[in-house]
Amino acid sequence: MRRWNGWGDEAVALDLPPEGDDFLRQRIGQGTPLPDADLAAVCARVPASRLPADPAVDHLLDHTPETRIRHARGQSLPDWLAMRSGDMGPFPDGVAFPESSDEVTALLAYARRHGVHLIPYGGGTSVVGHINPPAGAQPVLTVALSRMNRLLDLDEESRLATFGAGTPGPLVESQLRARGYTLGHFPQSFELSTLGGWIASRSSGQQSLRYGRIEQLFAGGRLETFAGTLILPTVPASSAGPDVREMILGSEGRFGILTEASVRISQLPEHESFHVVFFPDWDRARAACRQLVQDRVALSMLRLSNARETETQLALAGHPGLIRLLERFLAVRGADQGKCLMTFGITGRRRQCRATLAQARAVCRSHDGVYTGTRLGRKWAEKRFTMPYLREALWQRGYAVDTLETATDWSNVDALLNRIEHNLSRQLSDDGEHTHVFTHLSHVYGQGCSIYTTYVFRVADSYERTLERWRRLKHTTSELIVRHGGTISHQHGVGKDHAPYLPIEKGPLAMAAIQALGRHFDPEALLNPGTLME
Amino acid sequence: MRRWNGWGDEAVALDLPPEGDDFLRQRIGQGTPLPDADLAAVCARVPASRLPADPAVDHLLDHTPETRIRHARGQSLPDWLAMRSGDMGPFPDGVAFPESSDEVTALLAYARRHGVHLIPYGGGTSVVGHINPPAGAQPVLTVALSRMNRLLDLDEESRLATFGAGTPGPLVESQLRARGYTLGHFPQSFELSTLGGWIASRSSGQQSLRYGRIEQLFAGGRLETFAGTLILPTVPASSAGPDVREMILGSEGRFGILTEASVRISQLPEHESFHVVFFPDWDRARAACRQLVQDRVALSMLRLSNARETETQLALAGHPGLIRLLERFLAVRGADQGKCLMTFGITGRRRQCRATLAQARAVCRSHDGVYTGTRLGRKWAEKRFTMPYLREALWQRGYAVDTLETATDWSNVDALLNRIEHNLSRQLSDDGEHTHVFTHLSHVYGQGCSIYTTYVFRVADSYERTLERWRRLKHTTSELIVRHGGTISHQHGVGKDHAPYLPIEKGPLAMAAIQALGRHFDPEALLNPGTLME
Repeated sequence: MRRWNGWGDEAVALDLPPEGDDFLRQRIGQGTPLPDADLAAVCARVPASRLPADPAVDHLLDHTPETRIRHARGQSLPDWLAMRSGDMGPFPDGVAFPESSDEVTALLAYARRHGVHLIPYGGGTSVVGHINPPAGAQPVLTVALSRMNRLLDLDEESRLATFGAGTPGPLVESQLRARGYTLGHFPQSFELSTLGGWIASRSSGQQSLRYGRIEQLFAGGRLETFAGTLILPTVPASSAGPDVREMILGSEGRFGILTEASVRISQLPEHESFHVVFFPDWDRARAACRQLVQDRVALSMLRLSNARETETQLALAGHPGLIRLLERFLAVRGADQGKCLMTFGITGRRRQCRATLAQARAVCRSHDGVYTGTRLGRKWAEKRFTMPYLREALWQRGYAVDTLETATDWSNVDALLNRIEHNLSRQLSDDGEHTHVFTHLSHVYGQGCSIYTTYVFRVADSYERTLERWRRLKHTTSELIVRHGGTISHQHGVGKDHAPYLPIEKGPLAMAAIQALGRHFDPEALLNPGTLME
Repeated sequence: MRRWNGWGDEAVALDLPPEGDDFLRQRIGQGTPLPDADLAAVCARVPASRLPADPAVDHLLDHTPETRIRHARGQSLPDWLAMRSGDMGPFPDGVAFPESSDEVTALLAYARRHGVHLIPYGGGTSVVGHINPPAGAQPVLTVALSRMNRLLDLDEESRLATFGAGTPGPLVESQLRARGYTLGHFPQSFELSTLGGWIASRSSGQQSLRYGRIEQLFAGGRLETFAGTLILPTVPASSAGPDVREMILGSEGRFGILTEASVRISQLPEHESFHVVFFPDWDRARAACRQLVQDRVALSMLRLSNARETETQLALAGHPGLIRLLERFLAVRGADQGKCLMTFGITGRRRQCRATLAQARAVCRSHDGVYTGTRLGRKWAEKRFTMPYLREALWQRGYAVDTLETATDWSNVDALLNRIEHNLSRQLSDDGEHTHVFTHLSHVYGQGCSIYTTYVFRVADSYERTLERWRRLKHTTSELIVRHGGTISHQHGVGKDHAPYLPIEKGPLAMAAIQALGRHFDPEALLNPGTLME
């Protein structure tokens, strides 16, 4: 059963090793957990639904309190605090579970007839408030696409697969694997997030270096809108005017409800392995990273932890004896204090993989990287989707954890990274609190890379004050990112939390262009209000 | 000096070898050339300019007849017929040569004050009527960006170069080469076409397999519009809402005038070579082509000629003795009648190139390809930008030549290719005329490829009847392309010639979305009327 107030499946728990506990205590002090609300109590607080009855759609709707609670919030830290405190803010007035594009069309017609807001809902994994209902007088209906989760068509020659937009990551991959294919889109939210959600929020997977971001994978599909049905035909490339796919990518449910999507798939690879290299310091590590991507070494993933993240990962890994051995091995080879951990993936035909590994190792060696083989890489691969479970373990010890991410050009990476870390580190010092901050580059491009920063701080003595701490951290850093050459999001999207910063990044004319599209597709502004644009 | 009525520099002429002459005579009969108009006579027919005088911009304008003639038409076959006949249709009332974004802004203000249409003009190489002035009562000012042709900024770490939008291909590359870099965008029009034109029309270069289409190269820039200045910031990737760059790409001068563009550059490669392989038949050749791209063999270009194009190329190559030797060599190895020529490019670090070549040869071998080394590839590379000159030689023999191109998914390639060739071949048979038709796949993707078809036919006994022949060929084939799963253009854009077919491809809702953007950026519809959207 999925947790109603946190990440993932209730049966799965990931604990901190004792060394991790000590590590955090030394960095930011002992935490004191806040009390969790229970589901029954929250159910009792759900108000009556305001949705007008309508025979055209009533059979699609669920108004039960638990269902409405389970679709009220995503996975941002404010969402987490809301769910844990039980003070959840607005609930949707109901949740619809359509099974076809026709049923989605019927829901749009219903919304227009009665002036109901619609919120398209995929896996509910947003960390920036995409699917949170607005407060206000108009009723809100969340449209959960979870029943539209099947492989609808497979064109093996063109390597195109068409899915219902509500298909979650594991069902995308299992339905393809049965036929010998993979999509290769593996965001950390993979376990729960859906194809439609990836498209609507411009998601990026951990192996985007090989498979591309969702922008490169999304070939076409079907969007039901208030202005009619938009069919995006699949062509491999086109110079026929502005690309309408690119208007839908990142539209975050403001223009319509995606019901089907065709995506570009690949044959299951013959070989896949993940390798770890340690560098003596950040400068050499970053230079190696940049060279690997600018030289087009055909890696499938590449991430680079800074020294603080490297230290944190090793502390939280458990197995202190083995880690000590590793660190001795590395120190002898020049990677001691300040060392940085790089993980890279190699995927594809065996012959190509051999050539790529040789190229990658040569580049790393030329920057004094110490290659350690695939053992740590295998660990990374095993845990790649389980990190969100760690939040639960930290929460129960009285720690809040959140991430911030952006992307910027290589010439700005260090300056922006340092600003972000510095700002987060000192932001709670007026409260006498430390924030533990560490960063990795998670996606690399010839032009630049993403910067993915994690910050851990102690919860305050109340939910309100904890939320206030988060607001300060989030707001000041978001403002800083868009004022200093970063995008407000490389992979999480805009939602409601980032909406205030989007106009700073894009400028008024670009925002007005997006608004013009919004008026075109949704003239009465019924879809997902407050998301993407305030 | 640039030809006023054809392609390229007057000093350059490419002649047909005698064998090419024979080949065409056998296929479609002896041609009878039409008489060319001369420039002085056309100058005498240019009407007075209707542009209102205005001290704010008068110093930027040129109203002389020759300048107006030289900016009146592009390089489509109708353009060619218009220039050759001297019956040129509407001329711009003047041509402006701004040198800065501020001057472009002044021109926009002028256009609004006086109700003047503006046509942004890059290299004038459009083959679909992008820059042709409309007929009508409003004066038309063509804005030539040729003086905005400098490298403005180079960020070596981020591999970003910023150019004036009017920079033509050779000046893009020479300014970068001096610093050790390349953009790697080489459309056939490279000699004359400009960076701004590539962006506005979603161009694709011959080595897009390595460097990407212009969509992947365009990182940001500056667009002057009637609604204000749009600055597109450079970030390597973003999930911050719909991508506004992708609205400008392919906007064909309807939304604003691009004045600066930042593009993603690469280090000059250590190695580059082009290789030719012959396959016994189309099926095996196409299968090899598809496998090379779906297996992600890191080629920099890949094109595949069908049997008729292979035969034509060999006939037009000259050196009949050598060609006979080659054909004997190939026949012994199984590539005889029906053989298909594949050219692939390998570019990059030496070590990577060696690995890639081995991979590519192994794939070709497994499909019975006969590898012939780099000699023919070198020939291709030498002639890669000179093919348009051949049009002049054919014209002087009484032949008209044009191309049609599209892209489609692999599962549809053969069906669409056959339809296109069949339709073109039989279209003039009512006139008792043959059309010589041949095709190559010029750009390949995992999902599909482009189809690039050349057709040669005899000019009729008048310009009007020649144009009518072309119209029949073009219209029926364009209709067929968009009705059968192709895009109306993979690399030439929409312009005016393709505008009637765009709504069939995109559908009414997508067209209305693009129109909504047009109204936003250009509420009085002063920019490039009739292009992109009728």
